Amino acid sequence: MKTHIITIGDEILIGQILDSNSQWLAEHLNLSGIQVHQITSISDSPDHITEILTDGIGKYDLIIFTGGLGPTKDDLTKQTLSKFFETKLVFYPEINKRIKELLSLRSIKSNEMNQSQAYLPENARIFPNYNGTASGMWFEKNGSVIISMPGVPFEMKPMFENEIFPAIKNYFPTKSIYYKTVMTQGLVESHLAMRIRKWETNLPSFIKIAYLPQPGIVRLRLTAKGSDLNKLKNALESEIKKVHKLLPNEIFGYDDIKLETVIGTLLKKQKLTLSTAESCTGGYLAHLITSIPGSSIYFKGSIISYANDIKTDVLGVNKHTIASKGAVSKETVKEMAFNIKERFNTDYSIAISGIAGPTGGTPEKPVGTVWIAIATPKNIFCEKFLFGEDRGRNIRRSALQALNMLRLALIQKEEYQTNL
Amino acid sequence: MKTHIITIGDEILIGQILDSNSQWLAEHLNLSGIQVHQITSISDSPDHITEILTDGIGKYDLIIFTGGLGPTKDDLTKQTLSKFFETKLVFYPEINKRIKELLSLRSIKSNEMNQSQAYLPENARIFPNYNGTASGMWFEKNGSVIISMPGVPFEMKPMFENEIFPAIKNYFPTKSIYYKTVMTQGLVESHLAMRIRKWETNLPSFIKIAYLPQPGIVRLRLTAKGSDLNKLKNALESEIKKVHKLLPNEIFGYDDIKLETVIGTLLKKQKLTLSTAESCTGGYLAHLITSIPGSSIYFKGSIISYANDIKTDVLGVNKHTIASKGAVSKETVKEMAFNIKERFNTDYSIAISGIAGPTGGTPEKPVGTVWIAIATPKNIFCEKFLFGEDRGRNIRRSALQALNMLRLALIQKEEYQTNL
Repeated sequence: MKTHIITIGDEILIGQILDSNSQWLAEHLNLSGIQVHQITSISDSPDHITEILTDGIGKYDLIIFTGGLGPTKDDLTKQTLSKFFETKLVFYPEINKRIKELLSLRSIKSNEMNQSQAYLPENARIFPNYNGTASGMWFEKNGSVIISMPGVPFEMKPMFENEIFPAIKNYFPTKSIYYKTVMTQGLVESHLAMRIRKWETNLPSFIKIAYLPQPGIVRLRLTAKGSDLNKLKNALESEIKKVHKLLPNEIFGYDDIKLETVIGTLLKKQKLTLSTAESCTGGYLAHLITSIPGSSIYFKGSIISYANDIKTDVLGVNKHTIASKGAVSKETVKEMAFNIKERFNTDYSIAISGIAGPTGGTPEKPVGTVWIAIATPKNIFCEKFLFGEDRGRNIRRSALQALNMLRLALIQKEEYQTNL
Repeated sequence: MKTHIITIGDEILIGQILDSNSQWLAEHLNLSGIQVHQITSISDSPDHITEILTDGIGKYDLIIFTGGLGPTKDDLTKQTLSKFFETKLVFYPEINKRIKELLSLRSIKSNEMNQSQAYLPENARIFPNYNGTASGMWFEKNGSVIISMPGVPFEMKPMFENEIFPAIKNYFPTKSIYYKTVMTQGLVESHLAMRIRKWETNLPSFIKIAYLPQPGIVRLRLTAKGSDLNKLKNALESEIKKVHKLLPNEIFGYDDIKLETVIGTLLKKQKLTLSTAESCTGGYLAHLITSIPGSSIYFKGSIISYANDIKTDVLGVNKHTIASKGAVSKETVKEMAFNIKERFNTDYSIAISGIAGPTGGTPEKPVGTVWIAIATPKNIFCEKFLFGEDRGRNIRRSALQALNMLRLALIQKEEYQTNL
């Protein structure tokens, strides 16, 4: 089943707003096994609407328009559709009544513009709008179903969910689809691909894989399509078990869960507390942790020791350590982790010290060098990383790496418990 | 000049991510007078790429592709383009060298997949990628220019801004256009619009205005179009002078400058230092400040006192103050600001305490209540805000409000110097 989502609106073409309607529709359609073949944004122009309709009729099973139906531009899209589908606009008294009622609820008097919204194509199936004045329309031609909805998300979404989507499912028999996203941290896309190449090559043909990289995180999207949903689910879950064995430390969860949510859940479950001592990440690690509602239960706070004298005078790192080993060193980061855990009286702590860049690098410690330490109730373990040249990415990758190290400590991975 | 932006990537068609690349490109092209006629998202499929190319060649002056060039799917798009433009992939030693260098900086060994990225179409103009391994490509056919760029925003944006956009401007003659973005903080869109309504109504017809709101910030984009660039510039700058008088505290800069950059420049110029004490913002304020390269010159660090005992035991807020007035109060936030300035030995400090939500609100102090204090060398002034219900927005608005208050203190606005 081939679907085309089309947004009508100049505001997208001038880059003023993101096309969030199409993303929302694509997600909803996909989850029900309706594949979206193309998403297009076009201008508020009769020629452009006609052109894209001419191209799509017969080629797509389903064409969904959003936008172009506001009270000020209503006629343009409706007239164009009416002309294309060889019908005319007629007055719908029921719709007119509904518009008047809706406006009176908002103590707005219905004006000419609103009344014109009760004129709709004669041969279309009309869907009422319970949150606005522009109705939805459903046309059929040469084997294609063409739907037009208002562009205001607050109006479009309930109309689609409650009225139009059930009508689509009723009209088209849908295939089964099952998908899952595997969240990984710690390997860049190319290295992740090499690590799982053999597994990927041996995937059954009905399971597709997509790599979705972000700084510090690579998501693996697995999609299974076929006739029997249970069979698809079992096959996909069994493949995920296999890939988990290849990435035992890297996989931290599924389906867009965040690392900061994962560690929050682990800390809460074990009734443990956390503090952080940050240098190069400058508060970003604490920000990720505290972006999760309810994080105050396990997160007590942080000292951001951006200047070296804060590291010594406030955080209590030995002056000699910094003088002899440097602020970006195993020794400094270990003291930071130990001291913050003691000072803030927490069960666990994280410390990060590194060179975020763009300046501050040396031949021995280039930009991107980062030391991370995790203090557990019994141990302190630490690791050195070399991330890259970009400041923003170094900050993000450092924080995510630290969260994954904490996660591994919390689930008591052996390799982390023995590294003192 | 007719332009088509095309994104290649299944992740958009399945609704997993928003097509932010196209919006960014559309915005940039429009600002230079290049109109975007259509934005399309297609799948990672040779047939689909070929179909859209066949349709667009000769019809558009400019076709810009993003995506489909990651190390794991690189070959598909490149092979399809090569075939379409009747050329072949050849080895570019210079590109290979650059890829190796880039990866070695990240201490990653170049593998087969990376090496294959040095194979590029023979007859294309190649644009190096300074932030990744996939190169940009420029083809010409039947009067159309076709550009292909990687989809990772962090790689695509600098490649476009620094390499490809100058090449486009050089290739196509563009009309006169002058624009400037006015950055404001502290007023929501509707209130801002009311404040400047009269000025807006009296704008000359060749100057257009657009409101571009983000949480905590509203950008006002002014665009002047015409024949004489100097005339456009003078008229627009004179309008900006007028609007500045209507928004003396709210306008903090122009052209997408960040508040954290503005305060950094002010602190550096005056050789002043800063520290912060954060509660509800949980490190986000420090993160914004330290996201600016070179911030270590003026920013010494922060204490994030998420738990009340950290506020008292580490930050030294009087236990009695918290017990009698609460952690979210004028008194607590003043002590936080005073103490962090003393402890960290800085010239200025910022303290924030509030209820980010979704829980923790009371009838007197609902979710969104935030106190912000600024300590200057001589004074402490503070202000109470009521932002809203959303946690993420409350965190962001608090931090931006605090930065703007610091900015006003640094430029010695009278109203802030007298508020003790």
